[in-house]
Amino acid sequence: MFSKAITTTTQRTVVSSLLKQSKCLFTTSSKKNNFDGLYEKHKKIADVPMKTEEVMKAISENTLFTWNPSATAAASSIVMERGEGVYFFDKQGKKYIDFNSQAMCSNLGHTVPQEVIDAVDKQLKTVAYAYPCGLVTEVKAKLSLLMADLMPGDLNHFYYVSGGAEANETAMRMARLKTGRHKILARYRSYHGATLGAMGLTGDPRRWGSEPGASGIVHFMDPFPYTFSWGSTEEEICQKSLQYLREVISYEGGKNIAAIFLEPVTGTNGILKPPAGYLEGVRQICDQHGILMVCDEVMNGFGRTGTMFGFEQANNVIPDIVTMAKGINGAFIPLGAVACRDHVAAHFQKSPIGIGSTYNSHPVTLASAYAALQYFLRTDVLGNVHRMEPILQSLMEDLKKRHPTVKTFRSLGLFGTVELQKNSRGEPFVEFNGPAHPAMAQLKNDMISNGLYTLVRFSSFFTNPPLIINEKELRQGFEILDKCLTNLDKHFEK
Amino acid sequence: MFSKAITTTTQRTVVSSLLKQSKCLFTTSSKKNNFDGLYEKHKKIADVPMKTEEVMKAISENTLFTWNPSATAAASSIVMERGEGVYFFDKQGKKYIDFNSQAMCSNLGHTVPQEVIDAVDKQLKTVAYAYPCGLVTEVKAKLSLLMADLMPGDLNHFYYVSGGAEANETAMRMARLKTGRHKILARYRSYHGATLGAMGLTGDPRRWGSEPGASGIVHFMDPFPYTFSWGSTEEEICQKSLQYLREVISYEGGKNIAAIFLEPVTGTNGILKPPAGYLEGVRQICDQHGILMVCDEVMNGFGRTGTMFGFEQANNVIPDIVTMAKGINGAFIPLGAVACRDHVAAHFQKSPIGIGSTYNSHPVTLASAYAALQYFLRTDVLGNVHRMEPILQSLMEDLKKRHPTVKTFRSLGLFGTVELQKNSRGEPFVEFNGPAHPAMAQLKNDMISNGLYTLVRFSSFFTNPPLIINEKELRQGFEILDKCLTNLDKHFEK
Repeated sequence: MFSKAITTTTQRTVVSSLLKQSKCLFTTSSKKNNFDGLYEKHKKIADVPMKTEEVMKAISENTLFTWNPSATAAASSIVMERGEGVYFFDKQGKKYIDFNSQAMCSNLGHTVPQEVIDAVDKQLKTVAYAYPCGLVTEVKAKLSLLMADLMPGDLNHFYYVSGGAEANETAMRMARLKTGRHKILARYRSYHGATLGAMGLTGDPRRWGSEPGASGIVHFMDPFPYTFSWGSTEEEICQKSLQYLREVISYEGGKNIAAIFLEPVTGTNGILKPPAGYLEGVRQICDQHGILMVCDEVMNGFGRTGTMFGFEQANNVIPDIVTMAKGINGAFIPLGAVACRDHVAAHFQKSPIGIGSTYNSHPVTLASAYAALQYFLRTDVLGNVHRMEPILQSLMEDLKKRHPTVKTFRSLGLFGTVELQKNSRGEPFVEFNGPAHPAMAQLKNDMISNGLYTLVRFSSFFTNPPLIINEKELRQGFEILDKCLTNLDKHFEK
Repeated sequence: MFSKAITTTTQRTVVSSLLKQSKCLFTTSSKKNNFDGLYEKHKKIADVPMKTEEVMKAISENTLFTWNPSATAAASSIVMERGEGVYFFDKQGKKYIDFNSQAMCSNLGHTVPQEVIDAVDKQLKTVAYAYPCGLVTEVKAKLSLLMADLMPGDLNHFYYVSGGAEANETAMRMARLKTGRHKILARYRSYHGATLGAMGLTGDPRRWGSEPGASGIVHFMDPFPYTFSWGSTEEEICQKSLQYLREVISYEGGKNIAAIFLEPVTGTNGILKPPAGYLEGVRQICDQHGILMVCDEVMNGFGRTGTMFGFEQANNVIPDIVTMAKGINGAFIPLGAVACRDHVAAHFQKSPIGIGSTYNSHPVTLASAYAALQYFLRTDVLGNVHRMEPILQSLMEDLKKRHPTVKTFRSLGLFGTVELQKNSRGEPFVEFNGPAHPAMAQLKNDMISNGLYTLVRFSSFFTNPPLIINEKELRQGFEILDKCLTNLDKHFEK
């Protein structure tokens, strides 16, 4: 049916290398691609460990980065060679303590538990993949039974995807289909993921690059805005920000709103625990208008905040839909999940969700989570978070006492952030979303030089170590932070 | 900082079981979750193989499906217990030949090559996860070098995500950022993924459930519409559908259009190879207006169509951006990728893509692809597609000769579909997007009973076996199809 132009091995190799060298825009016409010799070439590359500069050359020339321009990002990258517990090592053998669990996701650290490795191996050898429409797997059944026991109330029904963004996208679609309403409310100080719908939910300026994009999403202000306060007491803050939300809803129309999305404890926007009564208030407002309450537990979930889920910081609040990823399996393999309550599931028993993700309920991803969650329970990771929580608190307090550049800190569980200032008037190094300040870049470099990795954002840095960290490691990390902040204080003294 | 309400193990267990039994809407207040006993309970469940009915009970009660209402989908599901080559087995030991590679994705079949298992194991034991902003891995460098050699022209730059939808979302964002234009053109007979942006790109009615959603996407008609033809010859079809596209662009404004998205060979919308000259024409139109040509190779890519990539069916067409998933690693672990040409990459060297996917460049996913692609080359999977292609063609021809219910078939490589009719006037069993016809459901059941699994959609079914299939297996599958179609023919005779 299709005529095949045959090229010899030699021709192909030469043509290919010429094409690559000359950056020619067009390949030769070849219906029958001939890749002879390519396996042998790459087998050789595969078998030999690369040097740092070889990795960096390929990374620079053949990959793209995301948050920063690729040229800048490539230049400052570390080649991760090996992980071990709360540490990782670069190719030179330099050791780093991970104080952000990479992206608040390596909650079980960098040593994958043997039972997780075994579970992945076994799954690959039995059922590596099953199309989720019409085919089901035992691991899906067993994981779902465990998840139903881990989640409170009637959050009994699960839908599995490949990450947090997809989980939020699915939750948004489910909320709209369930209620027959289009509008979604989400908060300004939030990040919900990298796809168009999840970016639309995102309140912070990381959304701008995707606009105009998703329709029907309305952002409202958090109980803790960046530049003003709702009140002078926690109670006033709670009551006024809830009253504000009620008024927003009265302008948008309660009957038009499908869902309110929120991170129970705000993540990269500042580790903000809601004031007492706030989540309860949102739940009540949702009930009043038939709005679904959706909690984004992608970062909070599985012990980060000191409770299994962030919404459990509140009393008797059961969201209608919960989205998860990261901690669900320690990020060892991409996985996200959506949980919903009986009344939401009842709708989808009779009516389709109607989206096609090839990797929905991927058996290998589910096997990794099933083993990781059993490991989490068996080794009592949540108990460790409870033991480390007051130590982290006291180390944060010491840091504040010792360093004039520390403006304030916030932490709960093993979820923390330190806000910096360049003077006693509380002036930050960087305005919210403003241009970078050289002192903050210097701080980041200083941390890296001293063997501590964490996320530095605007005028703050994060203290989100793996949940398996012990007291000695926690103190070691703070010794490095203390040293780096002493250097930073010199900016203050100037 | 946070007072912990302590509940005893006994209380927790009783409360939890009561909550689940009574479907109570609220959990008890418990800042400190107590999961004592839960590990032991689920260890017992984990250690014992489930019976089919136990799996189905948990699936029905604790999970949700997508394309169909969950109750219906659960009732008709098969429990996949084991895979082997082009076959899989259910819990009763019943054997099925996989004639759709699950979701056109299990291209290497159901036995994961040992080198892929080893690569995953090794990666889990060295670097299981690395945050893609600031940390890089050797496997990312090596895979990218291999990918650059597999792709023609200057498609030299790669960005890795967790699936096809995310790849298309990223490509859309990149096209908009690169060009500074908002509008995207995509085709009606297409499916591009399950997230809001990818659903917006999707042309077929699967998009409806996400509307109104993504802004700025304009759909245009394919060279092969469903209900009419652009002409009586391939050349006329090509020229007229290109002229139509030029006129659409003149109404939308060439300078407003960031990209044209297309599946080079249309997938679930009908395995439609574009007429000769069509992709070349689209490339020329794109060049004329500075529009980026984006090829969705999620289904086409890695040999499915008989060429490494679907766009290589055309002469000298190099898209600006290519999206991939599925075949990139045989779907053994969720992975998607975006490739782009030098001129696109140059933009992002200086300017960020600006999205945050935790699972961007996940090392374990990359390790699976690196090993799977080496396996693909070493065992010459593409050569097998070339050998099987004429056999599939001739088996399709036989089927059409023998069965009055076969209206027509289309196939290239190992990418095929058979369209059915209920009478010689060509009347289909199901109108496009119309209600199901009982004869099609019967056909699907008949295939399953006879041990063949494939996708049945509207009035057609697919013949997309794993690319490793041999002649004997291919013939065996067609024997089953022949038997099932003989039963279907009886509907015709009535």
